[in-house]
Parts: sequence; C-alpha cells; structure tokens
Amino acid sequence: MRLLLIHSDFIEYEAKKKTKIAEDPCSPSGRLEEALVAFCAVESPDADGIDDVVNQTVAAISEMAGKVECNRVMVYPYAHLSSDLAAPDLAVAALKSIEEALDKAGHEVKRAPFGWYKSFSLSCKGHPLSELSRSITPSEDAVKPEKKH
Amino acid sequence: MRLLLIHSDFIEYEAKKKTKIAEDPCSPSGRLEEALVAFCAVESPDADGIDDVVNQTVAAISEMAGKVECNRVMVYPYAHLSSDLAAPDLAVAALKSIEEALDKAGHEVKRAPFGWYKSFSLSCKGHPLSELSRSITPSEDAVKPEKKH
Ligand SMILES: [Mg+2]
Ligand SMILES: [Mg+2]
Repeated sequence: MRLLLIHSDFIEYEAKKKTKIAEDPCSPSGRLEEALVAFCAVESPDADGIDDVVNQTVAAISEMAGKVECNRVMVYPYAHLSSDLAAPDLAVAALKSIEEALDKAGHEVKRAPFGWYKSFSLSCKGHPLSELSRSITPSEDAVKPEKKH
Repeated sequence: MRLLLIHSDFIEYEAKKKTKIAEDPCSPSGRLEEALVAFCAVESPDADGIDDVVNQTVAAISEMAGKVECNRVMVYPYAHLSSDLAAPDLAVAALKSIEEALDKAGHEVKRAPFGWYKSFSLSCKGHPLSELSRSITPSEDAVKPEKKH
C-alpha cells in the first residue's frame, strides 16, 4: 500500500466518467472541510496480508489525525501513487475496510469511488505536519503460512 | 524520477517554512490557471544518468501538454512520491534543468521552490487524460560507462 496523507482546508470531488473497473453504486460527489485526505494505492504484495495492511493503514491515518487534531478523513483511491497495483476487487474491499475501521474508531469518514475518472479540488494547509507519505507492506507474521518460502 | 502529471483548472502555492534543505532565493508564491502540474520526485538511481532522466521527463511533460492542449506548466517538487530520493543538490539541479528545457520549448513555466513546507491548492479537471504517472529511470546507454557492471 502506497499512502499519501494531506491535511487539507477542504477536499471535494466529482465522479465524471466510469473506467472499466468502476465501483457502482457509489457516492458521485463529496466534500469535506478541515479534513485529512488519505490517498491510497493498494499494491499487489498486499494480497499476502491484506488485513494487516488495512490495520497498518488505519493506524497511520489515525496517528496523523491525532497529531494534527483533525477528525475528518476522506479515503481517496489514487492508483497513480504506485506502479504495482493490486487487482481491483482486492483494492475496493481494502478501501471499504479502511473506511469501516475509521468510522468505528469515531472518525467522520467519506470515501471517493474507485475506478472513476474524478475531478477534485484540494487545499493543503502546508504546515510541517500537513503532508506524510508511507509505503506499507504485510508484516512478516501476517503473511499467510503457505506463502512463506 | 517519479512523475505525476495533473491537468488543472489552477494550481497555486505559498512557501510557508524552510526545511534544512530549502532552496534560497526562491519564488515564495505562485499561481497558474489552466496548467499542467508536474509533481516530481528525483530519485537516487537518477544520478547514474541525470541528463537522460531530465530529457525523458521533459518529453513526458511536453507530450501530455500537447495531448491536453495546455501550454502552461508548474514544476512542483514533491518528495512524497518516492521513498528513494536523490540528494537535494542533484534534485534541485535537475528541476532547474527541466524548467529551462520546458521554457526553451516554448512553454509558460513556473517552478515551486524545493525544500520548503508549502501550502497549495489545486483543481484537477478529471477528464480521462487529466492524470498520468510515470517512473523514469536512466536508459541503458545513458548510464555512464564506468557505472556499468
Ligand atoms: Mg486555511
Ligand atoms: Mg473546470
């Protein structure tokens, strides 16, 4: 998982056109103010321990949310962050799990749709903690036994 | 080089605070409308053929500019696109060369400063050609002879 977190004054998007792998139904537009944008690219190695990757991603998002004192999160699929993408169905399932876990943790969460061409506008606050990127991989013990070689 | 190209209604930035590796002097703020934003992260392997990487990057930017019929380019350093960054002085030199080459090719170019915490606002158009990402590496023949092993 390639993750880019941006503390924003606002993030808004509008789904414009479907790709072959468009998620449907979906929320065709959305806006959050004073929100953490979590740009996510689920990657093929994540398949070896997707639950662990989801947990690590949620932990990284919650940690930054705490640091910048911001409770709102926009989960935004962003395939352009990686050149080794997971299969679409795995990616959508992971993004939904991230959304659910953040919601359960008490965050106000929205999620932009997967597989749509989307217009978006964003304003990054620019303070020293306002941008963070991270590469997340399944931790050793999470990798399913038969996968170990 | 990790490159992310976004066709925007506008891009604007404001330098907020220096990091240890801040470029100085620099243009502390900038805005372009109807512009291609070239988010660039110069990477350590690029050192083996930096001129070639600069040429490939300029070619990729010009190619997209032609496709979306947009002559304006904002070169925007964005280290968060990579986890294998080149040394700062190599990165700044490469970004300046990209800016110069785009200018010579007749583009209207601005360049956000390297090594500053910056606020920025951006509006991505969202049409099917509005976003492109690419990993660029020194091509074989560009790699300096004594580097070949
Ligand atoms: Mg503000
Ligand atoms: Mg517009």
